[in-house]
Amino acid sequence: MEKKYSYGELQKFTRAVFEKMGCPAAQAELATSVLLSADLRGIDSHGIARLSGYLRLWEAGRVIADPKIEVVHETPSTAVVDGGSGLGLVVAPRAMGIAIEKAKNVGSGWVSVKNSNHFGIAACHALMAVEQDMIGIAMTNASALVAPTFSVERMLGTNPICVAIPAGVEAPFVADLATTTAANGKLEILQRKKERAPHGWIQDAVGHSSTDPDELKNGGALLPLGGDREHGSHKGYALGSVVDIFSAILSGANYGPWVPPFPAFVPMPEGMPGKGIGHFFGVMRIDAFRPAEEFKQHMDHWIQRFRSAKRVKVEQPVLIPGDPERDMEAIRSVEGIPLLPAVVEDLWKIAEKMKVPFK
Amino acid sequence: MEKKYSYGELQKFTRAVFEKMGCPAAQAELATSVLLSADLRGIDSHGIARLSGYLRLWEAGRVIADPKIEVVHETPSTAVVDGGSGLGLVVAPRAMGIAIEKAKNVGSGWVSVKNSNHFGIAACHALMAVEQDMIGIAMTNASALVAPTFSVERMLGTNPICVAIPAGVEAPFVADLATTTAANGKLEILQRKKERAPHGWIQDAVGHSSTDPDELKNGGALLPLGGDREHGSHKGYALGSVVDIFSAILSGANYGPWVPPFPAFVPMPEGMPGKGIGHFFGVMRIDAFRPAEEFKQHMDHWIQRFRSAKRVKVEQPVLIPGDPERDMEAIRSVEGIPLLPAVVEDLWKIAEKMKVPFK
Repeated sequence: MEKKYSYGELQKFTRAVFEKMGCPAAQAELATSVLLSADLRGIDSHGIARLSGYLRLWEAGRVIADPKIEVVHETPSTAVVDGGSGLGLVVAPRAMGIAIEKAKNVGSGWVSVKNSNHFGIAACHALMAVEQDMIGIAMTNASALVAPTFSVERMLGTNPICVAIPAGVEAPFVADLATTTAANGKLEILQRKKERAPHGWIQDAVGHSSTDPDELKNGGALLPLGGDREHGSHKGYALGSVVDIFSAILSGANYGPWVPPFPAFVPMPEGMPGKGIGHFFGVMRIDAFRPAEEFKQHMDHWIQRFRSAKRVKVEQPVLIPGDPERDMEAIRSVEGIPLLPAVVEDLWKIAEKMKVPFK
Repeated sequence: MEKKYSYGELQKFTRAVFEKMGCPAAQAELATSVLLSADLRGIDSHGIARLSGYLRLWEAGRVIADPKIEVVHETPSTAVVDGGSGLGLVVAPRAMGIAIEKAKNVGSGWVSVKNSNHFGIAACHALMAVEQDMIGIAMTNASALVAPTFSVERMLGTNPICVAIPAGVEAPFVADLATTTAANGKLEILQRKKERAPHGWIQDAVGHSSTDPDELKNGGALLPLGGDREHGSHKGYALGSVVDIFSAILSGANYGPWVPPFPAFVPMPEGMPGKGIGHFFGVMRIDAFRPAEEFKQHMDHWIQRFRSAKRVKVEQPVLIPGDPERDMEAIRSVEGIPLLPAVVEDLWKIAEKMKVPFK
């Protein structure tokens, strides 16, 4: 049922689409590699399946293909970046690059971004730092789908946090998590398969736990990590709030229920207090704390000890954050990226509209 | 059954005990205010109930009353502090002070600490930044009680994260959370009352969910925030791991299963890779991003909007992180701090041993 495409095929197509939108060649290349890193890592909800969504935002004038991205405020270790309403796929690496430069100069760099759009997967940006023996942190707010503890109103996005940490002989530690019990992408899969969700993922319009993934269309909401008060949903709500505040109130982006929706057909919220959506990036140079080799030896020791922790079931190893995505990337880089028929059809439509070949 | 003491009574007693241990007067004062801030805020497990535990660590030679606290590595925005095996109650505010100074100079400050001990509640330290129009972050590792997803082995502490953010007319936003479903203190309360825990808090020695709070004494473990894989326990595990790495691998403290236990009678783990326990502190100056007044107006707007979010039950308001602890502090500052009989007895024993009056 699924059709497999090589990374190269999807790359060529996506790059051409971004170029047809008016992205300068280098930015089209960058946006493509960020977008498709999600497909490679198995986060299908954030990859090429969203290409038509980005395109519609551009058609609606909400994404500028050749944005003016600029630092509007800074200190030696911090900056606010105005993304010029560009693709988050391009704005985010630019902001991360600024954070890396600041870390080179003064040990760490912290950049809050306004006036941006969806930036793909957080891990792709955080990993930019790891290549340079630095710790990378990436987070973003998103349009409201999540109800705070004790509320029926959608007030927060799934607001992910990623922390990527270099190791020595071991692969890097990469924690990349939505601050909800389940990412929205998982719910979309259940909706497509017409399957039920576990309790603790969603609530209905009056705040009762529900197992129907379609409740989101009927006034329901995703639940913060923890699920309910007794299981710590106030913690997931607090973490999602921190992401919102760092991404948007530090920068001057929209926050809470005012974050612009990804689907271009959804009307913009009224009374928006800022510009676009917000991101937050952090970089810490390892050797701003201790010699990098020493740190990496201890990271290897940490990883090896956790990997060998006693298992509940002998056949299920204890994982290190980042393991599943890296395993998936290894497979898909070789075997290709499987796309659902609905996604392939979507790409055909884009191909026709933008006059870019795709088979 | 509980007996109430005024803050002043407990302060006088605690300060005298720390002085008898050999803490210099200013440090005894500081340690007291940090320790008792937990009692004021209603985090009874981290307050004066632990005084006898600190005392036993000092008797065992694991806490130095007049430590040499020093910066062993630094850049303009980062530092590693060696806590000199001092009370975390004293080491943590010192490290936070260094982070604040760095933030004044270059916009932000990030300090990882080794060779320390239990630092009380994270919020007390993070809030130091808020008074100066800065965002404060505090985290610490702790001895292993928590099993990673798919493991039966205790590998992580409850590793809390606190983020404190200033507002304008509203009280500050203070998220302070253990990266487990439930803090260990809540479990201790259930053990004392001989009540059951909800599913998702603990597992038994073979990794099955359990409702028996005594399972922890029989080889069981606390569960990461999320509870089980289906509800996102891999996220709580990842967050607890980040706290461990930032606190201990950046600094050179012990990590994972090697973090020294708080009870002095528990033997030290074998093969310890570092010194003492580790903390991590971060400070960002608000006006390193945008004018503080602007930021605070938006924080007020954020807080007011979330506070007025539509409720599930009309009688249960939507809370802002920090609300319950601040409400408790307002009450206990006036009405006094209630102590359980077992805690009062413990204080009497301390009074006798240290020859400090207490009624």
